[in-house]
Amino acid sequence: MIADVPARPRVRFTDAQIEMAHGAGGKASRRLVEGLIAPAFANPVLAQLADAATFDVGGTRVATTADGFVVRPLRFPGGSIGELAVNGTVNDLAVSGARATALMASFILEAGLPAETLRAEVDAMAGAAARAGVPIVGGDTKVVEHGACDGMYVATFGIGALDARVALDPHAVRPGDRVLLSGPVGDHGITILLARGELDLEADIRSDTRPVWPFVDALIGACGGALRWMRDPTRGGVATALNELARECGLGIVLHEDDVPVRREVRGACEVLGLDPLHIANEGQMLAVVDAAQADDALAAMRGVPGGEDARIIGEIAAQHGGTVLGRTPYGGTRVIDMLVGDPLPRIC
Amino acid sequence: MIADVPARPRVRFTDAQIEMAHGAGGKASRRLVEGLIAPAFANPVLAQLADAATFDVGGTRVATTADGFVVRPLRFPGGSIGELAVNGTVNDLAVSGARATALMASFILEAGLPAETLRAEVDAMAGAAARAGVPIVGGDTKVVEHGACDGMYVATFGIGALDARVALDPHAVRPGDRVLLSGPVGDHGITILLARGELDLEADIRSDTRPVWPFVDALIGACGGALRWMRDPTRGGVATALNELARECGLGIVLHEDDVPVRREVRGACEVLGLDPLHIANEGQMLAVVDAAQADDALAAMRGVPGGEDARIIGEIAAQHGGTVLGRTPYGGTRVIDMLVGDPLPRIC
Repeated sequence: MIADVPARPRVRFTDAQIEMAHGAGGKASRRLVEGLIAPAFANPVLAQLADAATFDVGGTRVATTADGFVVRPLRFPGGSIGELAVNGTVNDLAVSGARATALMASFILEAGLPAETLRAEVDAMAGAAARAGVPIVGGDTKVVEHGACDGMYVATFGIGALDARVALDPHAVRPGDRVLLSGPVGDHGITILLARGELDLEADIRSDTRPVWPFVDALIGACGGALRWMRDPTRGGVATALNELARECGLGIVLHEDDVPVRREVRGACEVLGLDPLHIANEGQMLAVVDAAQADDALAAMRGVPGGEDARIIGEIAAQHGGTVLGRTPYGGTRVIDMLVGDPLPRIC
Repeated sequence: MIADVPARPRVRFTDAQIEMAHGAGGKASRRLVEGLIAPAFANPVLAQLADAATFDVGGTRVATTADGFVVRPLRFPGGSIGELAVNGTVNDLAVSGARATALMASFILEAGLPAETLRAEVDAMAGAAARAGVPIVGGDTKVVEHGACDGMYVATFGIGALDARVALDPHAVRPGDRVLLSGPVGDHGITILLARGELDLEADIRSDTRPVWPFVDALIGACGGALRWMRDPTRGGVATALNELARECGLGIVLHEDDVPVRREVRGACEVLGLDPLHIANEGQMLAVVDAAQADDALAAMRGVPGGEDARIIGEIAAQHGGTVLGRTPYGGTRVIDMLVGDPLPRIC
């Protein structure tokens, strides 16, 4: 309902041309969407700018989401563009409180693409869809000349029915609520960066691409209405997702930086490259905000899901510092953690 | 239901690589979809290979459709990629008997694209969506390096609730049923071809891009259950759409070629280029099959819609020549009209 959407200051998009950063999921992306695209398409559902749009069709409350995938290379340790396309879409629905009912896929293929490459990705999509328990019910195929795309791009669309047990709303977030994270951050982004072979770095690391619905399902079962907000921290990482929440709810977020799990290999690569693991994309993790009284139950539920052993409570909502994310170090220091600025990792998904 | 899908001979995709023809909407496209993509994603909804997929979400019967748009040039007389993306998706739903409830749009943008070009297309989409009475509720934006796409590609997704007044089914088509067409064919494809400026041809012609829902709505009102089948003859044209119907229903289709409206400019360009207007893409026309007893009412209903003045009855369903489309000339001759083969008009939508 439009009455629920707070009046945000109008963003103006004044850049003369599109740059890589507009696709990175950080500040520039947000300016493009809020300043150019959303005003033209103005409607109350879009104005929520959520991972998925929720609206009524014939009396049923549905969630839908659309994603484009342009990752380079097409295959990388732990996954490929096809798996990413399915999991990413299933996950956008999941964190909106909807289990995917059906997916569609639109392929843009480059003339000259080996049929085996396409077959491998179609099979990867079929496998990921089967693991997520969702059928791919339709799609579209276009072909462009050799050189007019990088092998293949995939756009996916997902639809699901909202789970009646939850009512997610960033405006329901309260000071004292806890922030949970399902596992280590940065695996996907760093894997892609290393897989390009442009850096003289090697590390034993794989993309975390996977469906997060099992975490969502466990969380809903454990705390139902005490679950306030969820997000999958993809492009822009945990820092961008939490900044978006801070802006939406108007409260502060205190992050205990040492409680954020980061693999040694990811931390090492980030140090060499001057990157912050909190800005690196994940494709199989989720963030949740729950009432403090339910936080331990919620954490136990996440840890009970296979692959959730490293879930943590990483922070809490604060009445102070509205709209910002503050990192607190074990030495007692604090720093403001911003959204991603620029595009250190292009074409990550 | 899977029991309703006839057993078709299994198609094998043995091509070594993707060629432009695989995106042209004709025989090669069908082989790619039936031989490579659909078997991997195997499920009863996809097996229908219809313009839109229909299934249940939370008890409501919905139709969804996915489309990719890679048209070159981005703007052309009568429209642009943005209008095409909205109308094409709205139309796929319309011919499935569903009025669009919501659209989503996924953009793949090339770094360096002038912001004004994007703004013009976003505005074009907003205008087309407003004319079709449907909100654009969400989407996604990715940016690829300069040279990695042609300015912009757009993937659109649409969802709608099926109109309870109709039950479309190619297997309900009967010998004697009439084939209706909403207006002149070939305008879109020939407009794009000339707009590229690669041919020394000029003609006063514009794309026919428009929503066909008003025709569908009028047809449903006029003949309800007597309406058997609808299709928008885009890539591959009227010939491909009717061949697909002939295959699906197992009956023959007799087309009175002289009754198919073709503008002088389109016919002239086709003659010079050696193309058949029946193979040229349309973006604002529709085909319908109705019971013979209701055909005159159906025609009157289509003609009563603004822009439908040139609607015609162009043929009928026949018990003979199962699976084929026969063109009949006024001199009494006949010819077999095949699906589109190859790709005479790449990147038409």
